[in-house]
Amino acid sequence: MTVPLTRRRGRPGHDLESVLTTSVAVFTERGYEGTSIDDLARALGTGKSAIYHHVPSKDALLGLALDRALMGLEDVADSVRRLDGPAVDRLETLVRGSVRVLVERLPYVTLLLRVRGNSEVEREALVRRRRIDRLGAELVRQAVGAGELRPDLDPALTSRLLFGMVNSLTEWLRPGADHDADELAGTVAAIAFAGLRVG
Amino acid sequence: MTVPLTRRRGRPGHDLESVLTTSVAVFTERGYEGTSIDDLARALGTGKSAIYHHVPSKDALLGLALDRALMGLEDVADSVRRLDGPAVDRLETLVRGSVRVLVERLPYVTLLLRVRGNSEVEREALVRRRRIDRLGAELVRQAVGAGELRPDLDPALTSRLLFGMVNSLTEWLRPGADHDADELAGTVAAIAFAGLRVG
Repeated sequence: MTVPLTRRRGRPGHDLESVLTTSVAVFTERGYEGTSIDDLARALGTGKSAIYHHVPSKDALLGLALDRALMGLEDVADSVRRLDGPAVDRLETLVRGSVRVLVERLPYVTLLLRVRGNSEVEREALVRRRRIDRLGAELVRQAVGAGELRPDLDPALTSRLLFGMVNSLTEWLRPGADHDADELAGTVAAIAFAGLRVG
Repeated sequence: MTVPLTRRRGRPGHDLESVLTTSVAVFTERGYEGTSIDDLARALGTGKSAIYHHVPSKDALLGLALDRALMGLEDVADSVRRLDGPAVDRLETLVRGSVRVLVERLPYVTLLLRVRGNSEVEREALVRRRRIDRLGAELVRQAVGAGELRPDLDPALTSRLLFGMVNSLTEWLRPGADHDADELAGTVAAIAFAGLRVG
């Protein structure tokens, strides 16, 4: 796509941050495939130059957005990998940390969870996401092996349901709303590890 | 959209069922908004007439698909409403029944969960879906009130996470694969009601 050179300077009021924030909102609403750079420019109330001033393509915007989600989740995963102690406690730390990143970086994690691998940027993101998912599955297996988690459930299925519950938060949390990440993390952990039933 | 009268008869080999099955698969892959009747005809390997032979519009196809998901879930909800006994048991029946419908009607429920209210058909589906969601939330409240579920968790949040875990199955179950609905339902119920931790 060629943009006249005279328009390449961008316009005041649209730094990369605001371009990214608006783009992610539009991607999430209309779907990434269904969004053009023209749509993004319209949502920003500006010309395409304001976008091309910061990034070369729509794909680059997606890459930046996905990286924000992944960096947050990878930080949590890395810190969990450095922990000692019972696997069940490390698993709970991963669950709580994932909820916190999801709340703090909600638009980016929401976008990440919809990625299906339709481009190189998306496939790279999926590779990174699967590395984090594998840590969760591995901790469930370790905790079952150590007798810390009930042995009658399939570890792979358990891990998927556990992080499925975490990720379901993106279905109804509202960006910008004042969600209490610690309460959400505590409730997810309480349901998953202790169960809802009394006694 | 106008279709030449001479092509309105449809073609052999595409009954409503196969049109619907293929359409739902394409809607799910490309997004409903991003799919045209032309795309559906291409996926069916036929002309548009084969589609217009059965339904007047893309919207009508969506309506039929969503109705399949909703009818299944409403049947479960209605049978739960007729039950007596502890609220926690009725809640568990709703959870297990929802998992079963999700597995049996996976493509339709997957589509339903992505509906955001962008058309009249979608808004009607959302109204019906919310009625079922409210039953879940009400049963959680009743069960907490009866001392059957732990009282330290917010009932609305609990209900959302519980059915969020159920619905997360659509993220990775594969249509056509031989999933054991009872095992899945049992695992969801075990995690949610009894918790993962041993002792």
